[in-house]
Amino acid sequence: MNPNATVAEGRAAGAPAGATRGAQTRVREILSWYGSDNPGCKANLARMMNHGILAGTGRMVILPVDQGFEHGPARSFALNPAGYDPRYHVELAIESGCNAYAAPLGFLEAGAAPYAGEIPLILKLNNHDVLHDEKDPISSVTGSVADALRLGCAAIGFTIYPGSANAGRMYEQIQALGDEAKRVGLAVVIWSYPRGSGLSKDGETAIDVVAYAAHIAAQLGAHVIKVKLPTEHIEQEEARKVYEKMAIPVGTLAERVRHVVQSTFDGRRIVIFSGGAMKGQDEEVVNEARAIRDGGGFGSIIGRNSFQRKKPEAILLLKRIMAVYSGTAP
Amino acid sequence: MNPNATVAEGRAAGAPAGATRGAQTRVREILSWYGSDNPGCKANLARMMNHGILAGTGRMVILPVDQGFEHGPARSFALNPAGYDPRYHVELAIESGCNAYAAPLGFLEAGAAPYAGEIPLILKLNNHDVLHDEKDPISSVTGSVADALRLGCAAIGFTIYPGSANAGRMYEQIQALGDEAKRVGLAVVIWSYPRGSGLSKDGETAIDVVAYAAHIAAQLGAHVIKVKLPTEHIEQEEARKVYEKMAIPVGTLAERVRHVVQSTFDGRRIVIFSGGAMKGQDEEVVNEARAIRDGGGFGSIIGRNSFQRKKPEAILLLKRIMAVYSGTAP
Amino acid sequence: MNPNATVAEGRAAGAPAGATRGAQTRVREILSWYGSDNPGCKANLARMMNHGILAGTGRMVILPVDQGFEHGPARSFALNPAGYDPRYHVELAIESGCNAYAAPLGFLEAGAAPYAGEIPLILKLNNHDVLHDEKDPISSVTGSVADALRLGCAAIGFTIYPGSANAGRMYEQIQALGDEAKRVGLAVVIWSYPRGSGLSKDGETAIDVVAYAAHIAAQLGAHVIKVKLPTEHIEQEEARKVYEKMAIPVGTLAERVRHVVQSTFDGRRIVIFSGGAMKGQDEEVVNEARAIRDGGGFGSIIGRNSFQRKKPEAILLLKRIMAVYSGTAP
Amino acid sequence: MNPNATVAEGRAAGAPAGATRGAQTRVREILSWYGSDNPGCKANLARMMNHGILAGTGRMVILPVDQGFEHGPARSFALNPAGYDPRYHVELAIESGCNAYAAPLGFLEAGAAPYAGEIPLILKLNNHDVLHDEKDPISSVTGSVADALRLGCAAIGFTIYPGSANAGRMYEQIQALGDEAKRVGLAVVIWSYPRGSGLSKDGETAIDVVAYAAHIAAQLGAHVIKVKLPTEHIEQEEARKVYEKMAIPVGTLAERVRHVVQSTFDGRRIVIFSGGAMKGQDEEVVNEARAIRDGGGFGSIIGRNSFQRKKPEAILLLKRIMAVYSGTAP
Amino acid sequence: MNPNATVAEGRAAGAPAGATRGAQTRVREILSWYGSDNPGCKANLARMMNHGILAGTGRMVILPVDQGFEHGPARSFALNPAGYDPRYHVELAIESGCNAYAAPLGFLEAGAAPYAGEIPLILKLNNHDVLHDEKDPISSVTGSVADALRLGCAAIGFTIYPGSANAGRMYEQIQALGDEAKRVGLAVVIWSYPRGSGLSKDGETAIDVVAYAAHIAAQLGAHVIKVKLPTEHIEQEEARKVYEKMAIPVGTLAERVRHVVQSTFDGRRIVIFSGGAMKGQDEEVVNEARAIRDGGGFGSIIGRNSFQRKKPEAILLLKRIMAVYSGTAP
Repeated sequence: MNPNATVAEGRAAGAPAGATRGAQTRVREILSWYGSDNPGCKANLARMMNHGILAGTGRMVILPVDQGFEHGPARSFALNPAGYDPRYHVELAIESGCNAYAAPLGFLEAGAAPYAGEIPLILKLNNHDVLHDEKDPISSVTGSVADALRLGCAAIGFTIYPGSANAGRMYEQIQALGDEAKRVGLAVVIWSYPRGSGLSKDGETAIDVVAYAAHIAAQLGAHVIKVKLPTEHIEQEEARKVYEKMAIPVGTLAERVRHVVQSTFDGRRIVIFSGGAMKGQDEEVVNEARAIRDGGGFGSIIGRNSFQRKKPEAILLLKRIMAVYSGTAP
Repeated sequence: MNPNATVAEGRAAGAPAGATRGAQTRVREILSWYGSDNPGCKANLARMMNHGILAGTGRMVILPVDQGFEHGPARSFALNPAGYDPRYHVELAIESGCNAYAAPLGFLEAGAAPYAGEIPLILKLNNHDVLHDEKDPISSVTGSVADALRLGCAAIGFTIYPGSANAGRMYEQIQALGDEAKRVGLAVVIWSYPRGSGLSKDGETAIDVVAYAAHIAAQLGAHVIKVKLPTEHIEQEEARKVYEKMAIPVGTLAERVRHVVQSTFDGRRIVIFSGGAMKGQDEEVVNEARAIRDGGGFGSIIGRNSFQRKKPEAILLLKRIMAVYSGTAP
Repeated sequence: MNPNATVAEGRAAGAPAGATRGAQTRVREILSWYGSDNPGCKANLARMMNHGILAGTGRMVILPVDQGFEHGPARSFALNPAGYDPRYHVELAIESGCNAYAAPLGFLEAGAAPYAGEIPLILKLNNHDVLHDEKDPISSVTGSVADALRLGCAAIGFTIYPGSANAGRMYEQIQALGDEAKRVGLAVVIWSYPRGSGLSKDGETAIDVVAYAAHIAAQLGAHVIKVKLPTEHIEQEEARKVYEKMAIPVGTLAERVRHVVQSTFDGRRIVIFSGGAMKGQDEEVVNEARAIRDGGGFGSIIGRNSFQRKKPEAILLLKRIMAVYSGTAP
Repeated sequence: MNPNATVAEGRAAGAPAGATRGAQTRVREILSWYGSDNPGCKANLARMMNHGILAGTGRMVILPVDQGFEHGPARSFALNPAGYDPRYHVELAIESGCNAYAAPLGFLEAGAAPYAGEIPLILKLNNHDVLHDEKDPISSVTGSVADALRLGCAAIGFTIYPGSANAGRMYEQIQALGDEAKRVGLAVVIWSYPRGSGLSKDGETAIDVVAYAAHIAAQLGAHVIKVKLPTEHIEQEEARKVYEKMAIPVGTLAERVRHVVQSTFDGRRIVIFSGGAMKGQDEEVVNEARAIRDGGGFGSIIGRNSFQRKKPEAILLLKRIMAVYSGTAP
Repeated sequence: MNPNATVAEGRAAGAPAGATRGAQTRVREILSWYGSDNPGCKANLARMMNHGILAGTGRMVILPVDQGFEHGPARSFALNPAGYDPRYHVELAIESGCNAYAAPLGFLEAGAAPYAGEIPLILKLNNHDVLHDEKDPISSVTGSVADALRLGCAAIGFTIYPGSANAGRMYEQIQALGDEAKRVGLAVVIWSYPRGSGLSKDGETAIDVVAYAAHIAAQLGAHVIKVKLPTEHIEQEEARKVYEKMAIPVGTLAERVRHVVQSTFDGRRIVIFSGGAMKGQDEEVVNEARAIRDGGGFGSIIGRNSFQRKKPEAILLLKRIMAVYSGTAP
């Protein structure tokens, strides 16, 4: 090794083959946006960004598996029964080269120990089930920052439902939990899913609403923000006036992603997008990744489209998506 | 004794006659699923699994007596007035060779001291009465982790009502209590009983709902989960589509048990089943045990069918059930 | 089974073959001496008394392995190098049918998990090494009650050195730790070893001093007291006057044991005796057990004489000793 | 990638080129020794073992830089003035491919942020200076577990001086700090350096004393133990008898390392060795690494021999040492 | 500037008018060295650096008045009786354009309110008096972080005495207080004054000792370090070898300052120097400032040489010193 080697080159010793000085530079650039955070939070953000196939690219693909809690086990796992086993998902995340794996308390307790230290973990601190249907949903707090530490997590995850009459309660919960998490160096990931009596069904993915929801999550102090891919629909009349007057381009998915990224502190927060329900065609999922990439999004969080198919197929799809983000595929 | 005896053989000295190396292996295998727990939690799980007639089999029969609180004393104990005395139930659990005895604070305070160390105890930390009837029930927290320790318990017990508008509140309570209990090495047993305005009466025992409720309890971090035996009914339309599409077999009780076990982390959490109301025929109760055994369930929690009859009859029935689980009866 | 069967008979289902109604009665009798303790402490005392070959007899043989810390690893384990492995001792305690295993934090952390729930554990909360030699020794606090709970222990252990200028500090430490332990249902075992500038070398095992040390431990609130076997020597002049005037019989080992037992609340506290350094002849160790038994002592704590020989020999010796206590050998 | 790839293969995506399934197996094997620890501690141990050139080998080379505090800045850094800059050492650790970097609070505060997440950090929680010389030294607590979390550390480090009259105070401090650290998932590294009025100067590195010191650190609950390389000298008379009687081989450095490893829970704790003062000849340092490797030691902690020379030379030497451990050099 | 300038005029010195882009760049550069600190700490450091005549230069002159406590009132204030009034010193600091004013609790309580917000304040959290003289001094904690907040301070100040047998106790106090202060965004200033039985009288200002003391303060996490100007004397034999071997230049005061600055994280921590006792000649004090400037020091802390003369003279002297630092005087 060249004795004048820089840190970035030295880092390569413990990093994937693809990690270059440029990649290291990109991760450090992203970390520079979090100047108010202690080195612990930055290190955990870096751990997620420096892990897996996309290590060092500043892009992320995260595997989340909270659908068992959110939708029930059969709806989640019957299509690929291997997924009933909590170890399956950790293995899938590791083998496919994801940046991180996110799940509720029980799944992490059952899955964290055998693979300790092998992939960054995100503990989902609140969850919701559909055995009771509410117009104005609120998730229940089902885990703690102490749990995240004892399970060796890099981050906590938390869902808010802007548009719900109960949104304020969730904002207050993540305020307290986020403060506690940042103090101990954990990163904060907010799932921001507009729902509730304040919105129409179409409004939940309307471009104005999704951009607004991402902004709220950023304002609540999230390091990483997860939203659904937005549609062209505009929900709020007051918003529509501005979108039309300023001719904000939201016609293509990439344009809408770009608008959400801009709405999330002009791109100075990591915002990633969820794929939603199981897609019929892989190409559809990959195209979404292309649009996210082209719009400047930071990556995908892909649950049902990965764990609801056989593992080899899931890995193939995840790697196609990562190839889009890493630039090795068109 | 052979001086080359292994640990399993040595253990036999302090274990029931039937405990073999295989049995020890089974308990250790079950404990291996709880890799995130400290040795204290594992020891208390082992204590329950290594006690009584089913010691070492990995199956459990637990005697719960919280009906006095839940339904009132006369409805609970008039059929067999010996049961008004809190000592009666501890003796019944000990004499019949149950794995553990579960009760609310008062019953344990009155019954724990005279039989200290003679049977693993579970303190039910929340309870509900029927003097006020709610559409969306919530149990009240009536005991603490500190109580469980001072009473010498092996575990805490907690009831959740998925389907209730108040379910979230109970999830948050068990999150906090479970965290505290695990820290001090107590096992966590969750009674997951779907009820409330989100469900029809039939839905409370519907196969999709019971499997979902068991999954929620596991995600909340339960070591042991107790649910009711499910019926063939399917409550939720979104779930029905999956059950039908994937042709999930739920026609027999054993099949339904198997599905619940699978829904509880693919069998990597201990899930046991309650017998429900007093049955007219013993054979019915024993047949349920057979179905639980054949479906891979871990055992039964039998309250009214044991303490609402004379002790000799109760012991006879409990031993018949244990014989089913231990394989000494068909 | 006779429907009028008592608890003791029912208990037999989960107890060693030898446990009889009389045995259960003896354990309950001993527990009755601890009327100020909560059921948790009693249950943990019962767990130790109901485990292993001596289960139910009210006698105990405990395996303690803190010599690695106290004397250094080579002096402790070179004679039988298998003992360098922390798992060895847990296995030895289990296989030989001891009532409990006592060790410092590191040995329990390394040994508790694989054998969770298979033998009652005692966490030694303070330890001393000989790399610095003091005239007035004090052990350092090297573990906590929280450690004991997370490791699934039945008791804490603590050493005091009556006769040391630092004795008062140790009394104050066990006061605080004992209080904390009893609150959470852990039993308290005190090793009471007279040492220090207040005593001659012979005085450390003088009958008056050992009896006094046992009494101090009892007064400090110990549930179980461990002392060394006393000699006929009398250390303190003021004491000698009384021993001579009242002609207290201390000529034989059994008489001295009886006097120590009497001095420990007239036999209403469990007092056990240590064997000390490795003996040349097994017979010597067995004879000591006979004297302890005949003097009304509650058992032995046998470290070096068990783990400093090959396991088969150790098990043979331990079983010979237990046969003395259980009455199956002369 | 083969879609049937196992976890070990998938892990390779985020691991150094050399990481094989066998390597992953070795790390998991080592983690299995820490069965009482939560997944957080295991993950942080894994993070250190899976980083740098020795990732996955189960061997470690750590760069510690606390000499500025311990000996003063000129004695530490004047030989290579680049080392006055706290960033220099983090860069050296990263560029040379070390497993971790250890330093006091100030150095980490000044160095952690720019390289967040790029190398596992160990916060030395106590430190000692030589402006006041004591016969019985004690280090001062200069950092906290909260500091370690906010700085993103994988472990805390703590020095004990067995043989000092103040040793007990340090044992008690690490008991409390270690308990706190383990609770939040941080690994615990103990520097065990015999010193003080209980020992002669030669005794500080005597084989019996070093083995004893390593054992004490393990009993205090250390995950990783650091001792000095021992000499053939035997300090304590009582120990000498055993070494001679049992003919414990301590003639070569490799034999002495083997004895220390055995004394540290029969090799079931990670024990690494320090190189001590700046050596004249590199070959001497490399030969020490060979002896550590051949004796079954887990690696080296190399301070002055690395940072007291120019960076290119330091990297060359560190890589030569790592080649010894990884088996790519004789 | 007119020495009779009012507060308003003095304050103007720290207002935007004088601040150039280059100056702002320097402050930001200095802040970049504190990457582990939250914006609160950085803001308070910036407040001190952006106040007064030296605003934006990265140099500081601080007025400390704790001599009343340290030496008694007559020795401190009789020379200029105006100094008995606590308001006098705040006014002096404001009027002379100092960066900050440091004092014990009482002086700040008496002086903070009338001039609230007019000058950055530093609360000295520990103090020492000479009514009891010790060989190994320790200061008493006489204020709290809460006091600093309620008094509107920018920083806490704390004195350590490296070389005292009690140094460790002070290190532990500032560890705890510093952690607390940083959490609430206060800057930490450490006065590091070698004293005590480990040092000769000459050793207290020996170049090796002062450099070491500055390094210790930095390692303890200080943002700003204050030491005495060092002499050419070398105290420690082990250090002397290195100074001679490496020919470290310490012949002139500027060289010695440069060495201290280097020893304080290679200049990446703010280190300022105290003038000591009242000098006969102003020129001597100004010359010291020149040496500090030329050696790369960050400024002066000037107590007795300012408040022990009439205010106009004091202001003249302080302004001469500031002119040296700002480059407007040679």
